[in-house]
Amino acid sequence: MSLIVQKYGGSSVSNAESIKRVAKRIVETRKAGNDVVVAVSAMGDTTDELLDLAHEVAPIPAPRELDMLLTAGERISMALLAMAIKNLGHEARSYTGSQAGMITDARHGAARIVDVTPGRVQEALTDGAIAIVAGFQGFNRGTGDITTLGRGGSDTTAVALAAALHADVCEIYTDVDGIFTADPRVVPHARKIDRITSEEMLELAAAGSKVLHIRAVEYARRHGVTLHVRTSFNGNLGTIVYNPAAPGLDENGEAVEEPIISGVAIDLSEAKITVVGVPDIPGKAAQIFNIVAKTGANIDMIVQNVSAAATGLTDISFTLPKSEAQSVLTALTVEKEQVGFQSLQHDDQIGKLALVGAGMRTNSGVSAKLFTALFEAGINIEMISTSEIRISVVTRADTIHEAARVVHTAFGLDAEDVAVVYAGTGR
Amino acid sequence: MSLIVQKYGGSSVSNAESIKRVAKRIVETRKAGNDVVVAVSAMGDTTDELLDLAHEVAPIPAPRELDMLLTAGERISMALLAMAIKNLGHEARSYTGSQAGMITDARHGAARIVDVTPGRVQEALTDGAIAIVAGFQGFNRGTGDITTLGRGGSDTTAVALAAALHADVCEIYTDVDGIFTADPRVVPHARKIDRITSEEMLELAAAGSKVLHIRAVEYARRHGVTLHVRTSFNGNLGTIVYNPAAPGLDENGEAVEEPIISGVAIDLSEAKITVVGVPDIPGKAAQIFNIVAKTGANIDMIVQNVSAAATGLTDISFTLPKSEAQSVLTALTVEKEQVGFQSLQHDDQIGKLALVGAGMRTNSGVSAKLFTALFEAGINIEMISTSEIRISVVTRADTIHEAARVVHTAFGLDAEDVAVVYAGTGR
Repeated sequence: MSLIVQKYGGSSVSNAESIKRVAKRIVETRKAGNDVVVAVSAMGDTTDELLDLAHEVAPIPAPRELDMLLTAGERISMALLAMAIKNLGHEARSYTGSQAGMITDARHGAARIVDVTPGRVQEALTDGAIAIVAGFQGFNRGTGDITTLGRGGSDTTAVALAAALHADVCEIYTDVDGIFTADPRVVPHARKIDRITSEEMLELAAAGSKVLHIRAVEYARRHGVTLHVRTSFNGNLGTIVYNPAAPGLDENGEAVEEPIISGVAIDLSEAKITVVGVPDIPGKAAQIFNIVAKTGANIDMIVQNVSAAATGLTDISFTLPKSEAQSVLTALTVEKEQVGFQSLQHDDQIGKLALVGAGMRTNSGVSAKLFTALFEAGINIEMISTSEIRISVVTRADTIHEAARVVHTAFGLDAEDVAVVYAGTGR
Repeated sequence: MSLIVQKYGGSSVSNAESIKRVAKRIVETRKAGNDVVVAVSAMGDTTDELLDLAHEVAPIPAPRELDMLLTAGERISMALLAMAIKNLGHEARSYTGSQAGMITDARHGAARIVDVTPGRVQEALTDGAIAIVAGFQGFNRGTGDITTLGRGGSDTTAVALAAALHADVCEIYTDVDGIFTADPRVVPHARKIDRITSEEMLELAAAGSKVLHIRAVEYARRHGVTLHVRTSFNGNLGTIVYNPAAPGLDENGEAVEEPIISGVAIDLSEAKITVVGVPDIPGKAAQIFNIVAKTGANIDMIVQNVSAAATGLTDISFTLPKSEAQSVLTALTVEKEQVGFQSLQHDDQIGKLALVGAGMRTNSGVSAKLFTALFEAGINIEMISTSEIRISVVTRADTIHEAARVVHTAFGLDAEDVAVVYAGTGR
């Protein structure tokens, strides 16, 4: 008997009909002889509706109370799902994050899981029941208060439960058929990936692939949880995200030939800031990024130009989420004299493209092929950054979709058929 | 410094605007130098909407899951109310029934409070915060599960908190100005009652007055909690429901002249069943009501006619909620031979009128005056039942409103002005 953890997002449980459909799928998994634990998100738009209400009563809602409010969402979906399963003749019990032992720190709205004590969930399984657990929510022991995990929270709940219960697999049900070599809405000939390592998945998620949240992938990698990303709208197999014993080996430790390129991810959510005319003397970069760090901004790529020998000045560019650009610009302006730079440039019309593949480690020529493809399409590269299994480039925002298509073709990723895209996304 | 417990029903917190209005009222109470604890119901129609969803996914929702579902309602309203108060610059913290220590038995949907351990509420007060507690909900220690208190639950939550915290008063905010001598929608000249004993209030509630639930009044009487029933739509004083030290004494033990009649209540929710031709021998009534008791029906009035000497047969009539009549009829029909009665009559076109007043104890002639008033209006009395401070009569349903008006007038209860009626009711 296997233990399977399943996670259903908001779009999979958006109304009574879809809840009944999901209930049937869960019961089928149970009937196939598996123990089943389910993590569920709030129904469809519930979270947004609750957020709207919160902002109507208070412009800046108190974080503790906002968590109390939002956790009502999963309470509704999990109770309905348990009812629907019981109505099909199978025992089911719903548990809040707190009841399921999702212990977190006290950071309301962005709590981190510090411990998972799923005693009641285990008990339910022992009794032959299906356990339905509220995604996204936790409980802080010190304050006794309810917390939420923030973005990607329900995926993280599912992975954390799978790790704590030593589940055989954690199935993430979403509104796409799996992980694709590129976003099918941008690259119609994107191919579904059958198997991918968690390391590659992490790079894809970090580079803007929205299907799995980076936090859930990180948790899965750290705890050795195998993920199966698939859709609840049909019975197709999706993408297995696995933890190889070592690079170049599969999950059983056997040698595999890794694909050179797993996929292409794009990201239009970042802006670029350039600090112009920085004295090219030791410590200046550190000074600048200490100022930036104090704003709490999440810096992504950093590029420092070669200093012009004549002036002794250099430029430093970095990318960060658009929403964080203004506070960084303000902080740097305040310290302009102190640092001694000449001016600041702000550019929010950039796009980022990342090429990810474990096979890059042992394959030279990937960068050259990427730059050639972009050059031939007349797309200019503004920044470059690389990791062991990823190459990222920044281009103009309005060329990024074209860039994704030509790179996808250049690396032989195109499928014969056009990918199916479903509506909506869960949390 | 006084400690005031306030309860707001669903109609007082039906949308963001009304939540902000209630927040202001709570803050005013706090500013006046009081400690404030608030019990709040779910917003407007939330409970009905959740019930509809439940019935869409399962014809008979599992009771444990139904409680989990419905308790999302107060979670939403209490968090929003706490946010709105914090937005006005006052510290507020919301607590679920479980966090507030509302310990109940395990009867889902109709749980009874077995203990109240409001440690966190007390802590909030000590910290100078306003505590917002979810009405209607509790927690069973044995199962670790969430429960709901059933009808009138939020009133009971407020009263139980007031008792446990030794509050000075428990203010029940509702959509009427207080307790009236009759339902103002039926008797336009009904008068607001300024003060009433909990004993009289209990009789009025039992007789069909909907403003306070009988369970909350019982709890208040047993624990010596003074209630103040008032509206959240204006600042008027409402009705004080107090616990006299002894009949004929006020709450300070001083002699008061009790009003002969406090009010008139009517009830159209009952049906009458008559068991015709019962052998007039000892034990038959016991036999019949044992059969009835097994169905769980709530019997109200019982009348046995004088036996006709010639036949040795008698008729026994009783009233009960309309919804429970069918199962009682079925149960009695099954045992017809055994009991030996001739037939059953079912009448769901009855109305019940009750006249309540502590002064009845020492005043003769109340019954005579009641019967005369009804006779003069041409209204036939079908059943009569009395307690120490109440007289109830059953008439045809279509005469009950007229009956309420003539009795109200006959006992000098009419006000000069017509009472104001607000829309909606809470839970």
